[in-house]
Amino acid sequence: MPVDARKTISDLQELRALTADDHGAQRIAWTPTWLKARAWFQNKLAKLPVEHHLDAAGNSWTTLPGKSEMTLILGSHLDSVPNGGWLDGALGVLAAFEVLRAVAEDFHGKPPITIRLVDWADEEGARFGRSLFGSSAFAGTHSIQADRGRTDRDGIHLEDALRQCQIDVERIGDAAIERGQAGAYLELHIEQGPVLEGMKLPLGVVLGTKGVERHAITFHGQEAHSGSTPMSVRRDALAAAAKLALEIRPIARKHPDAVATMGSVKTFPGIVTAVVGRCEATLDMRDLDAGVLASMLAEARAASERFAAEEGCTVEWSRIWSIEPIPFNPQLIELCEQSVQEIAGSGHKLPSGPLHDAAEVARAGIPVVMMFTQSLAGLSHNPAENTRIEHLELAVEAFDRLARKTMQWLTCA
Amino acid sequence: MPVDARKTISDLQELRALTADDHGAQRIAWTPTWLKARAWFQNKLAKLPVEHHLDAAGNSWTTLPGKSEMTLILGSHLDSVPNGGWLDGALGVLAAFEVLRAVAEDFHGKPPITIRLVDWADEEGARFGRSLFGSSAFAGTHSIQADRGRTDRDGIHLEDALRQCQIDVERIGDAAIERGQAGAYLELHIEQGPVLEGMKLPLGVVLGTKGVERHAITFHGQEAHSGSTPMSVRRDALAAAAKLALEIRPIARKHPDAVATMGSVKTFPGIVTAVVGRCEATLDMRDLDAGVLASMLAEARAASERFAAEEGCTVEWSRIWSIEPIPFNPQLIELCEQSVQEIAGSGHKLPSGPLHDAAEVARAGIPVVMMFTQSLAGLSHNPAENTRIEHLELAVEAFDRLARKTMQWLTCA
Repeated sequence: MPVDARKTISDLQELRALTADDHGAQRIAWTPTWLKARAWFQNKLAKLPVEHHLDAAGNSWTTLPGKSEMTLILGSHLDSVPNGGWLDGALGVLAAFEVLRAVAEDFHGKPPITIRLVDWADEEGARFGRSLFGSSAFAGTHSIQADRGRTDRDGIHLEDALRQCQIDVERIGDAAIERGQAGAYLELHIEQGPVLEGMKLPLGVVLGTKGVERHAITFHGQEAHSGSTPMSVRRDALAAAAKLALEIRPIARKHPDAVATMGSVKTFPGIVTAVVGRCEATLDMRDLDAGVLASMLAEARAASERFAAEEGCTVEWSRIWSIEPIPFNPQLIELCEQSVQEIAGSGHKLPSGPLHDAAEVARAGIPVVMMFTQSLAGLSHNPAENTRIEHLELAVEAFDRLARKTMQWLTCA
Repeated sequence: MPVDARKTISDLQELRALTADDHGAQRIAWTPTWLKARAWFQNKLAKLPVEHHLDAAGNSWTTLPGKSEMTLILGSHLDSVPNGGWLDGALGVLAAFEVLRAVAEDFHGKPPITIRLVDWADEEGARFGRSLFGSSAFAGTHSIQADRGRTDRDGIHLEDALRQCQIDVERIGDAAIERGQAGAYLELHIEQGPVLEGMKLPLGVVLGTKGVERHAITFHGQEAHSGSTPMSVRRDALAAAAKLALEIRPIARKHPDAVATMGSVKTFPGIVTAVVGRCEATLDMRDLDAGVLASMLAEARAASERFAAEEGCTVEWSRIWSIEPIPFNPQLIELCEQSVQEIAGSGHKLPSGPLHDAAEVARAGIPVVMMFTQSLAGLSHNPAENTRIEHLELAVEAFDRLARKTMQWLTCA
C-alpha cells in the first residue's frame, strides 16, 4: 500500500484548527497548547501496533518493533514559534506518521527492521531561547549548566516549566539511551527559503546544515556635533559599519551557497544632531564548508579593521555563537536524490541555512538525511508560511519512498 | 579703561562653582539652579548705573542708557544643557557684562548710545525641547501654539514651568517690544567645533548660521531568514541605508563648509538571524548657502532612490525640521574681522553649524555678528568643554574692541 498523502494534509489541517489562532500557530514548547497538540497526536496512534513513551528530555517516541532491532528513525517537531505557520515541524511529524502507518500495514505490524517516530521537544527554543533542546539532549551535545538559568519573558525558569511537563532538568541527558541501534534518521521539512521555488522544483535533497559564525562587532569613533564638526575631522563609527555592511556581500558571493547578514545595527548616541560615536552591529555568516566559513570570517574581520582604520575608528569583535557545518550521510543523500527523482522527476541538492534536529542526530554519529519541499515566497515562522498542496503530496510520497529505500539499505547493511 | 578679561574669567569660575556638580553645569532653563545663576548675575549689576527687568518671555535685560536711544545689544544665555560645560552661553553673558562695566566707567555712566545686555531665556531647550525660546519670542518668530503641549520628562507642562518663573505663556510675544531702537547685536561664543583649534587660531569671525535640513528616511525591503535566503534574492533595507550613509559624505565634501550626518540608524526586526526588512535613518545637512543646501538635499534624495532601486527596496522621506541659512551683517563682519586682527593678529571667517540666539535676532532684521573663540577638541555640551585661559582673555578683549567699533558705527549711522 502506498502512503495516502491526502491523509497527512488533512491531519495538518486538523492540527492547525486545534492549535492556531488568528495570528498563526501557537504550539510553543512547554505550554498547554503544545501539550494539547501532543495529546491529539498520541490519540492518532491508538489503532497502530506501536509502543509510545516520552524520554528524559521530553522527546516523544513511537516505536513499531521490527524483526530486527536495527532501527530507522523518522521525525521532526510539533512545537512552533509564536504566530508560526502550519507546516514548520508539523509536516515532518505527520508525514512520518503516515509512513509509519503504511509500513505497519504493509508488513502486517512486523517490518524487517524497527521503525521509530520521534517528535523532538522544543526544536524552536521560542520560549527559553534554547533551540534543538530535545535532540541535543539525545545527541549528548546539550550541557544543561549553560541553560539552567534561562527564564521566559514572564520570569519563569526553564527548570520549573519542564517540571510542569514531568521533565527533571537534571536527567535530560538520559535521553541518550534512545539512540539504541539507530541506523539512520530521516526528516522531511519545508525549505523555509526561496531556492526551490526560484528553480520551480517541488522537492530538494539536503546536503547538510551550514556552519554558523555569529558575532557582535562594535566600532568606536568619536561622538561629535553634527553642525560644528567638519567632514574632514570626523571619526564616524557608522561610516565604518556601513562599509562593512556592504563588504560582507561580495565576501559571501564568492561562494555559491554562502550567506552573510548584518541583521542589527545600533547607533550611539543615536540622535539626529550627533556624529555616531559608537556603532554596534551583528554579523551572521553561514556555509556548508568549514574552510569557506573560516575564510569568510577572516575576510570580514580584516575588512572591518581596514574600514575602522580608514575612518579613524577602532573595532572589537565578540563571538555570540558558532557551530560547525554538519554534512549529511552521502549514501542517504544518494537514496534521497533517487526518491525525489522517481516521484518528482527532478530535484536539487542544497544545504540548509536554518538548523534542524537532524543536525544534532548527525552529531551523535547516526547517518542522516533531510528532504525539503518548496516554501512559497521563502516565508516561515510566520502565519503566511505555505506550500502548494500538490507539492505537499509529492513530498509525503517521496519521503515514503526514501523510508522504504532506507529500510532496504539498513536491512542489507 | 580697557576691559579686564581676568574679571570675566573669575566670574565664569564663580558661576561654575555655584551651578555645576560633579557631572558639569546644571543651569537648565526654568529650574532652580538657573534662577540661582540669574540671581547671582543680577547681584553683580548692583554697582552699575543700569536698569534691569525681565521681559514677557523671561529674557533678562540690563540697560545702560546713553545720550541717544540708538541701542547696541550685547548678549548670550546663562542656561546650559544638563551636564554641560562652563563656557557655552555663560562666556557671552559675562564678557558682555565686563564690556558694559568698562563702557559705563569710560563714559561716566552716559555713553553716546544706549548699551543693553541680554541674557536670553532658554537658548538650549534642554528641558522642553524648544531651543532659542526667548530670542525667538523677541524676534516674533515663535508661535506658542506648537509648543504649548510640550512637557518635560516628568510630565510637567511648559506652561506650568513658565508660570513658576512668573512668565505667562500667552504673553511671550510681548517681548518684541524690547527691539526698540536696536541698531546692532553682538554675541561672543565658544566655537563648539574643531576648526579654529585645527588652524591654531584663538578667534574667529562668524559669517552666519548654517541652514539645516533634517529628515527621517525609511528604507523598506523584505525581512528574510539569514540562513535560508540566498544573497541574490535579498531585499536588504540596511544595504540601501549603508550606501546612503557613505554617499552623503562626497555630497557634502563638494562644498567647503557643508556637513551631512546620519546620526541614527535603526534596523527592524533588528535581530542577528534576519535580513533587515526596514531601516530607519536620520539625515542632518547644513550649509550657509541656501542654494548649496537645496542641491545637497536633492542629491541625497536622488541617491537614496537609486540605492533603494538597486536593493529592491523603496524609500520614504519625511522632514523633521528645517531652517534657512541666516547670514550675518557684512559691515559688522568687517568690524569683527578688524577687531580680531587687532587683538589676535589673525582670525578666520567661518559659518556656525550650531544655531544661536543671534540667528533669531538677525531674523528680526537687526544687524548681527558673532565672534567665536577656540574650543579645545571641539567639545561642548559636555563637562570636558574647555578653552585656553589666554584665548578667553583675547576673546574678551577682542569682543570689547568690536563693541567699541560698533558703538562708533552706530553713532555715525
